[in-house]
Amino acid sequence: MKNAILLISCLDQKGITAAVTSFVFENGGNIIDANQHIDEQSNTFFMRIEWSLSGFKVSQGKIADTFKVLAKTFDMTWDLYFTGEPTKVAIFVSQHLHCLYDLLLRHKAGQLPCEISLIISNHPQAQSVAKDFGVKFVLIPVEAKNKKVQEKKQRALLVKEGVELVILARYHQILSAEFVAQFPNQIINIHHSFLPAFVGKSPYDQAYQKGVKIIGATSHFVIPQLDQGPIIEQDTVRISHRDAIEDLKRKGQDLEKIVLSRAVRWYLQRKILTYGNKTVVFE
Amino acid sequence: MKNAILLISCLDQKGITAAVTSFVFENGGNIIDANQHIDEQSNTFFMRIEWSLSGFKVSQGKIADTFKVLAKTFDMTWDLYFTGEPTKVAIFVSQHLHCLYDLLLRHKAGQLPCEISLIISNHPQAQSVAKDFGVKFVLIPVEAKNKKVQEKKQRALLVKEGVELVILARYHQILSAEFVAQFPNQIINIHHSFLPAFVGKSPYDQAYQKGVKIIGATSHFVIPQLDQGPIIEQDTVRISHRDAIEDLKRKGQDLEKIVLSRAVRWYLQRKILTYGNKTVVFE
Amino acid sequence: MKNAILLISCLDQKGITAAVTSFVFENGGNIIDANQHIDEQSNTFFMRIEWSLSGFKVSQGKIADTFKVLAKTFDMTWDLYFTGEPTKVAIFVSQHLHCLYDLLLRHKAGQLPCEISLIISNHPQAQSVAKDFGVKFVLIPVEAKNKKVQEKKQRALLVKEGVELVILARYHQILSAEFVAQFPNQIINIHHSFLPAFVGKSPYDQAYQKGVKIIGATSHFVIPQLDQGPIIEQDTVRISHRDAIEDLKRKGQDLEKIVLSRAVRWYLQRKILTYGNKTVVFE
Amino acid sequence: MKNAILLISCLDQKGITAAVTSFVFENGGNIIDANQHIDEQSNTFFMRIEWSLSGFKVSQGKIADTFKVLAKTFDMTWDLYFTGEPTKVAIFVSQHLHCLYDLLLRHKAGQLPCEISLIISNHPQAQSVAKDFGVKFVLIPVEAKNKKVQEKKQRALLVKEGVELVILARYHQILSAEFVAQFPNQIINIHHSFLPAFVGKSPYDQAYQKGVKIIGATSHFVIPQLDQGPIIEQDTVRISHRDAIEDLKRKGQDLEKIVLSRAVRWYLQRKILTYGNKTVVFE
Repeated sequence: MKNAILLISCLDQKGITAAVTSFVFENGGNIIDANQHIDEQSNTFFMRIEWSLSGFKVSQGKIADTFKVLAKTFDMTWDLYFTGEPTKVAIFVSQHLHCLYDLLLRHKAGQLPCEISLIISNHPQAQSVAKDFGVKFVLIPVEAKNKKVQEKKQRALLVKEGVELVILARYHQILSAEFVAQFPNQIINIHHSFLPAFVGKSPYDQAYQKGVKIIGATSHFVIPQLDQGPIIEQDTVRISHRDAIEDLKRKGQDLEKIVLSRAVRWYLQRKILTYGNKTVVFE
Repeated sequence: MKNAILLISCLDQKGITAAVTSFVFENGGNIIDANQHIDEQSNTFFMRIEWSLSGFKVSQGKIADTFKVLAKTFDMTWDLYFTGEPTKVAIFVSQHLHCLYDLLLRHKAGQLPCEISLIISNHPQAQSVAKDFGVKFVLIPVEAKNKKVQEKKQRALLVKEGVELVILARYHQILSAEFVAQFPNQIINIHHSFLPAFVGKSPYDQAYQKGVKIIGATSHFVIPQLDQGPIIEQDTVRISHRDAIEDLKRKGQDLEKIVLSRAVRWYLQRKILTYGNKTVVFE
Repeated sequence: MKNAILLISCLDQKGITAAVTSFVFENGGNIIDANQHIDEQSNTFFMRIEWSLSGFKVSQGKIADTFKVLAKTFDMTWDLYFTGEPTKVAIFVSQHLHCLYDLLLRHKAGQLPCEISLIISNHPQAQSVAKDFGVKFVLIPVEAKNKKVQEKKQRALLVKEGVELVILARYHQILSAEFVAQFPNQIINIHHSFLPAFVGKSPYDQAYQKGVKIIGATSHFVIPQLDQGPIIEQDTVRISHRDAIEDLKRKGQDLEKIVLSRAVRWYLQRKILTYGNKTVVFE
Repeated sequence: MKNAILLISCLDQKGITAAVTSFVFENGGNIIDANQHIDEQSNTFFMRIEWSLSGFKVSQGKIADTFKVLAKTFDMTWDLYFTGEPTKVAIFVSQHLHCLYDLLLRHKAGQLPCEISLIISNHPQAQSVAKDFGVKFVLIPVEAKNKKVQEKKQRALLVKEGVELVILARYHQILSAEFVAQFPNQIINIHHSFLPAFVGKSPYDQAYQKGVKIIGATSHFVIPQLDQGPIIEQDTVRISHRDAIEDLKRKGQDLEKIVLSRAVRWYLQRKILTYGNKTVVFE
């Protein structure tokens, strides 16, 4: 049984909720979940509404066209999704494989409603893991001098496979502005610090040198500015003077796995809306 | 500028959200916040909707009567509230005053939209605190033999002062079933353990003896069965073998203050719905 | 480079720390780490001391005999361990494989200084996982009627393999008192609740029915009384009315993995001392 | 019954622990608590040892002189303290009084072993609070042009009252380098962010604009560089898109109180050692 999901944002004004819920109801839909939020700074209205298509009078293929009229009235930005149509996903990874393993295991356990189309890496280590889980693996080594060419290969592969979401599961290469522009708010990265603290390289070393008492991890959408994209999720764990850098890495890996997988799951469930540099997550 | 708030629950069925939001919109109201939840086990629909009365066509005094018709259609259980009409509150306390202080300070800081009508205690310690904050204090000592009579006095005072919410801020007497029945889901207690663990007396001692590595606090509505009422909020803090019982008490007090004040704030903001032994909190 | 580790407990009295640290120093050892704790209720002294064997004048094989004299003076209970001699471990698992996977991955990442000698299960699901990681797998189905016989097989295997630590990584069979007696404080279980709340079967269902706002996981040594053994570690995660039982299970699994692996790591690092129903963990 | 406490740091070398614990034992002292830590990066040894003076053969006044000899052997940096001699403390505060109230209440509850000698403020709001708690209050308004003069008054007062520890409990003036130099590692500040994120002014606004999903608070020793001093303690709390700046401030205040009071308590218990830009906290 399929559901439809609408993600809506527009200038706040009277009657939006009534109009949208009536649209669903009058066409015979049963609302499964509805969430809204008004950002008071920008006077923006956000909504996520999910309803069952069982008994819905408008056929799936015509819902967008039918809703378009209403959307115009309120000058909405909106997206329509359907459950049961798994998003195609690519995972980029380098040499640290814990996030990759975690995503593959959660996928196997049915926690991530997606199809993992391929794993792309600039190193060979993930190959055997990909094989164990029966996922296509493509090795694309990247160096400063061949980066442009190799990115073209990567992008061509993503297009060919119909990938919608790119997950950077500890991929230690910075994507070019062109790459990012091709997948706006469709690339999720895990950064191993509590952003905006410790941007860039070796955040655990930075945290150790700084002497913080808590470390964190942050999942965010990728924009051309390094580690500056809209934050989706963060979490933290306590450390002490007894923890060496190795301990920070070990403790941090647990955070990374959890924080990245939550972001991916929410993306796949269409629970994230982005505005400016921020996100609304209707978890 | 006043807002109206409706808390609604009923059997889930098509069209409730559309009906309620249209009721607000068609009468010229602007929705400030709307939340809904469907409990799948019991197929119950819950909703909290808040809208601005500015420009609303139905006068405040007639909203209930007007909504009644719609409510009947869906066989709703519902309550209507208005912001800007501070709830009258009584705080019961014994000899531990940290939660009392905390509530008084938060109230002073404008975080609790209520009027603290009086403080009732079975001990004299809170008297000077009440005086510092300019709140009426009534000493009503309670012993096994005079409990019935003293509770009558307490209840008479609550009625006389028009108290809606009773807060047991570490009040170490068990209220009779009659007392509780007079204030259904209107008495909030703080229990200094992570319920259902360590019911009853001396939960910190129980936790210490058990050797747990984390302690907690729980705020809940009071029902006749001791420490069994619907849980509103809980929080936890880590302890270790280095912590003596005194440390558990000290660490726990911070939890108690936070967990109780959250529950009180949510109650005052009309964000809590109760069903069976559980709560929905639209925080 | 090997280290020696002493775990000591005895009645508290003057001079223990000085005696032990002087024992190490006078024999040419360099203390890497030293921790002590005095339990005031029982007036018990606990100590963990780790020192480098490089330059230590007593040969490894004679340290126990040499220390015995000192230990007698203070009537100590004590254990001597050496790093670089990996503990042999067996993992018991049923149908939920997330903890098993987690332990195998952490072991592979070098976070668990042990040798995983075998995996024992009453179900076949873990077989292919064991194969992927190159660990011996033994299927021993257990039913009420054959439990005694099957446990004999299990225990014989453990003895044969020289297993010191048994990890119940979501093994859904209750071990007999005889089994437990053979491995005192050597069996670590993960229980998927915040003990002592929700003992026994289906703790997530119990938590859901109770309406708690936080769930937890507990790792503990196994004693004959179900879920009553000394607690080693606990952790908690927030839930809300929006979480169905499936969500509790999903969120709880992350806790289970972390809480079990911490206990196992601390055991292997010889950081846990047990007294009565409690533990001292020198993390 | 008094205890002595030694805080020691020096280059790591064989025999330090044995020497120090033997010093205590051979003079008839009973060790209450002993903690040590080796920082591997700098090869520095840290120790905190606390022993009962009951039965100690060296009189309190001569302990320092006696220990000096041993300290020289290992080229130690060390400090000697005695329990039962309450540290004199001054609290600096501006217009936000929640941390001040919190410290006064914890002091009243016996959780802070100190004498609060005076409260200094650049605003009059705290005056009545000081009066309620019977603490001396001095109003010293500070502006850019009179800052040097006013700081002189402040410092003269601190010296006159014999103040050892200065607590900046949301004091919104930056102390001059001279002021700081007079109280090295004796000034504790609470910064209302998870440092190093959001240094300087209005950290809650910064956090709100950045769209973080967690906020924090940090207590640290003050050095001339703003918000850069050695971190003593941090804690964090989850926020969401639903939280306005006001909510961040409200939630953050609970953190500030807890994080500042922990640092103050540990300082008073002589549990903090500082090295470079970092702290060792033997909590």
